[in-house]
Amino acid sequence: MTVLILTSEEDVTADMVVLRLGEADVPVVRLDPADLTNGVSLSGEYAQGACEGQLSVGGRRVSLSGLRSVWVRRPGVAAARAAQPSAWLTEESAQALYGLLRGTDARWMNHPDAARRARHKPWQLRLAQHSGLPVPATLITTFPQAAREFAERFPDLVVKPVSGAHPQEPPRTVPTSRVAPDADFSAVAFGPTLLQRRVAKRADIRLTVVGDRLLAARKSADPHAHPDDVDVRFAPSVSPWLPAQTPARIAEAVLRYMRGAELSYGAFDFAEDADGVWWFLECNQSGQFGFVEMDTGQPIAATIARWLAGDEDTRGTSADDARGTAL
Amino acid sequence: MTVLILTSEEDVTADMVVLRLGEADVPVVRLDPADLTNGVSLSGEYAQGACEGQLSVGGRRVSLSGLRSVWVRRPGVAAARAAQPSAWLTEESAQALYGLLRGTDARWMNHPDAARRARHKPWQLRLAQHSGLPVPATLITTFPQAAREFAERFPDLVVKPVSGAHPQEPPRTVPTSRVAPDADFSAVAFGPTLLQRRVAKRADIRLTVVGDRLLAARKSADPHAHPDDVDVRFAPSVSPWLPAQTPARIAEAVLRYMRGAELSYGAFDFAEDADGVWWFLECNQSGQFGFVEMDTGQPIAATIARWLAGDEDTRGTSADDARGTAL
Repeated sequence: MTVLILTSEEDVTADMVVLRLGEADVPVVRLDPADLTNGVSLSGEYAQGACEGQLSVGGRRVSLSGLRSVWVRRPGVAAARAAQPSAWLTEESAQALYGLLRGTDARWMNHPDAARRARHKPWQLRLAQHSGLPVPATLITTFPQAAREFAERFPDLVVKPVSGAHPQEPPRTVPTSRVAPDADFSAVAFGPTLLQRRVAKRADIRLTVVGDRLLAARKSADPHAHPDDVDVRFAPSVSPWLPAQTPARIAEAVLRYMRGAELSYGAFDFAEDADGVWWFLECNQSGQFGFVEMDTGQPIAATIARWLAGDEDTRGTSADDARGTAL
Repeated sequence: MTVLILTSEEDVTADMVVLRLGEADVPVVRLDPADLTNGVSLSGEYAQGACEGQLSVGGRRVSLSGLRSVWVRRPGVAAARAAQPSAWLTEESAQALYGLLRGTDARWMNHPDAARRARHKPWQLRLAQHSGLPVPATLITTFPQAAREFAERFPDLVVKPVSGAHPQEPPRTVPTSRVAPDADFSAVAFGPTLLQRRVAKRADIRLTVVGDRLLAARKSADPHAHPDDVDVRFAPSVSPWLPAQTPARIAEAVLRYMRGAELSYGAFDFAEDADGVWWFLECNQSGQFGFVEMDTGQPIAATIARWLAGDEDTRGTSADDARGTAL
């Protein structure tokens, strides 16, 4: 049974997992959908109530029924490197590849449907609420008056994009920024705006979830940091990430979130306040983990490899695993 | 409790349903996401584990908690008619609108996630098989040799696109066409190709499903038709659509398909062969129904209106409803 990794050629994070799978003698096929019709071939036949087929990558063939798992890491655009690329060929190739893979019994990290849905920020907030995670008061609005009233109730505010990265080429991350409560909110009428109560944080939390396994890391906030340095991705860093213990109630709520989202991998960001409460900020279904593994020594790549290999001991436990066993 | 219809201004099919809802005194709000920030406003607040909000269309406000159902008919691109449209504004507006709507308790026809998934043709074939519907032998391949071998086993073949309509502007439907078994299949290597055994049909079947209600229509094939006229959408028409009875086994399988696909509306196309077997061709989750209602007199619009209004008698029955009661 083979692990299929859909990713581009240069992907150091995938390399880490491939290494672990190799150590455990688990067969791996690495495939970039961009190579379809030019190095990658596929075939599937639907007959008598079943579907049988195969993929071929650089001459190596793997049966669709022999796939144990599919890891959707950083796949290229289907058929992007074909001899004559086109929007039509991309659409046909993507449907053929993912359509055949959808028909298999392989487990996904993450399934394309779940991955796509999980990118919706307002949906994340609602699921986090339903799962029992503390969510800072948030407003999404095009009514200037609603923004003004929200700012009166929550004078310490941040603004974020509703949708995530700005769709320029290359996509640009829009930082979370602080807003003065007496700001002029009239421009809210021209585009939906997400306002959120700022959490006065004493630490950032990154909780990486692989199947049912939770690996939490904590980075203390700089006590001298300017309160305008809200976004950990852009703030100057002083402390390293250190392994942390996930509070039991948060662990339960996070696993409810993962089940509700039908995700097998998720990178949660929380802000820890002065009372130790972890406030949900977001869950990135394709969040990077290399920097956490580097700082903390937590075996995230090995845990992913175990999940992909289908070893049972990566399932059925919600215990923290700050220092797990080798694969 | 209000029915929300997401569609463009000119939509005669939506008009038919709106008329029925009006007759039944069910409040309706019609909204085109293209009008966001320019006639359409939204607001939603996430606080204390709940989300409350409202939409405003041309000055009329409706509470998100007061929505009983959402009909996704032909919505425009979000914020396409804003004063300063942009890809970024579209993304932010779509996430805000659909994000807020996803958080409500409204029932969907169809939910955006289910609708998107349902467009995948290879996924349709697999689900149809799993649901117990007869599916003609089908091959999706980039291996010329696989295509040749399939053509030997099934010499009477058609070719179709894997993905549906060609993404040109405006999108163009690619007709299903007949292929000679001795065709040169070498070009298959340059793009995934879908080959399917041609069903020698004596009739086309259009089965419209609304919730659990099935409305079947049948159009006899012209006995003098040329066998190359495969695609009912392009073939010259002689017979009208007439109401038909759905075989019990097909009805059960179709309802399994609908549950598996999480769809509340679907337009199934079958080819009926000389033995009376209905062969699954596809299920279009946004298929038109006006032409069937015109020909057959089947109350499809009224059935949709009843489903949107949440009347229980549109659920829990799988009986054919060739001539239903008025709303």
